[in-house]
Amino acid sequence: MTRRGRPGYDLESLLTVAVKVFNERGYEATSMEELSRKLGITKSAIYYHVASKDELLRLAVDRALDGLFEVAGEAERMGGRAIDRLEFLVRGSIKVLVDRLPFVTLLLRVRGNTKVERAALARRRDFDHLVTELVKQAEAEGDVRPDIDPAITARLLFGTVNSLIEWYRPRGGLGSDDLADAVCAIAFSGLRASENQGLTGSGSPQRHFQ
Amino acid sequence: MTRRGRPGYDLESLLTVAVKVFNERGYEATSMEELSRKLGITKSAIYYHVASKDELLRLAVDRALDGLFEVAGEAERMGGRAIDRLEFLVRGSIKVLVDRLPFVTLLLRVRGNTKVERAALARRRDFDHLVTELVKQAEAEGDVRPDIDPAITARLLFGTVNSLIEWYRPRGGLGSDDLADAVCAIAFSGLRASENQGLTGSGSPQRHFQ
Repeated sequence: MTRRGRPGYDLESLLTVAVKVFNERGYEATSMEELSRKLGITKSAIYYHVASKDELLRLAVDRALDGLFEVAGEAERMGGRAIDRLEFLVRGSIKVLVDRLPFVTLLLRVRGNTKVERAALARRRDFDHLVTELVKQAEAEGDVRPDIDPAITARLLFGTVNSLIEWYRPRGGLGSDDLADAVCAIAFSGLRASENQGLTGSGSPQRHFQ
Repeated sequence: MTRRGRPGYDLESLLTVAVKVFNERGYEATSMEELSRKLGITKSAIYYHVASKDELLRLAVDRALDGLFEVAGEAERMGGRAIDRLEFLVRGSIKVLVDRLPFVTLLLRVRGNTKVERAALARRRDFDHLVTELVKQAEAEGDVRPDIDPAITARLLFGTVNSLIEWYRPRGGLGSDDLADAVCAIAFSGLRASENQGLTGSGSPQRHFQ
């Protein structure tokens, strides 16, 4: 596919390696020089595919953001109660996080030093806004506790989701669905054993999701 | 206090500026050269206080870790039910995070590329282990839902706490106590309006904390 460089480095595999290096070393700290050494190809072989380090970053963070916005679109179209759409969005976001872990990790570490980074932060803000609106609507429908500012609830909820990148590893045994179950159980119903369960832990702890 | 450099740069103010620069630019990406430019002092003026960039990092992350372990010690000594000690630990950790925000931020971004970073990660693991033990004990006492692995519960709980560094700013109006109230309400009781509150949101949403 490429004119120069090691066979097999198409844009996709180049992006995969670049994202891995950015996550390990930091985007700022990684030069194109270093990247070419890690890839074992020349800088011009990289420039055949992308115009700059910035373009690699843009492709990478959009991979994460596009996934999140697809789920958000689905959540919007599904209709029904806002709390169910909120749970759908949380579950779908966890799936995106698990499936595209290196991309989401990179996205969440973006600080806003360049135009590409600022554009990514703007899309993240749009996403946060959308979550806040869902929480507000769910509160108006009486399904979300009314004593906490919906923007704070939204931030705490996705703070929990985003924190998964710090420790979750797909090969660790816990699947995407199990992870989503755990997050939703705690975030929606709390870690405290409910009164209905009693001290023996009987009863269905996930009764809200039936 | 210093032999050279701008008056007023004692170790404390040097550390404050260094941590700010590390957080903005990334620890890896910041050279001592750059740091000295930002401080407006010579590199030797920095070396009067610390032996290396690494030592600045060690002092900074220990400022965060020492705070967290102090709270953990208090939580251990207070006795009583594990769930109450767990809540105490969450609240205390949020206070440390708010009071020492730049230090905790730097700590949570440490990746383990150097000996100092690996030592910090080891202390973080000790802390996580301690949280997991509290969750286990609270589960054994029937106060924590038994359907989620205590290590996962501990990670989600402190994932939520740690995610505060991403958006919380002390001048934003929300105080440390309000923040701790919101985190504990959602993490312990869930964001879902409880059955006791009904659709109007009446009743005490924080009934667990009375």
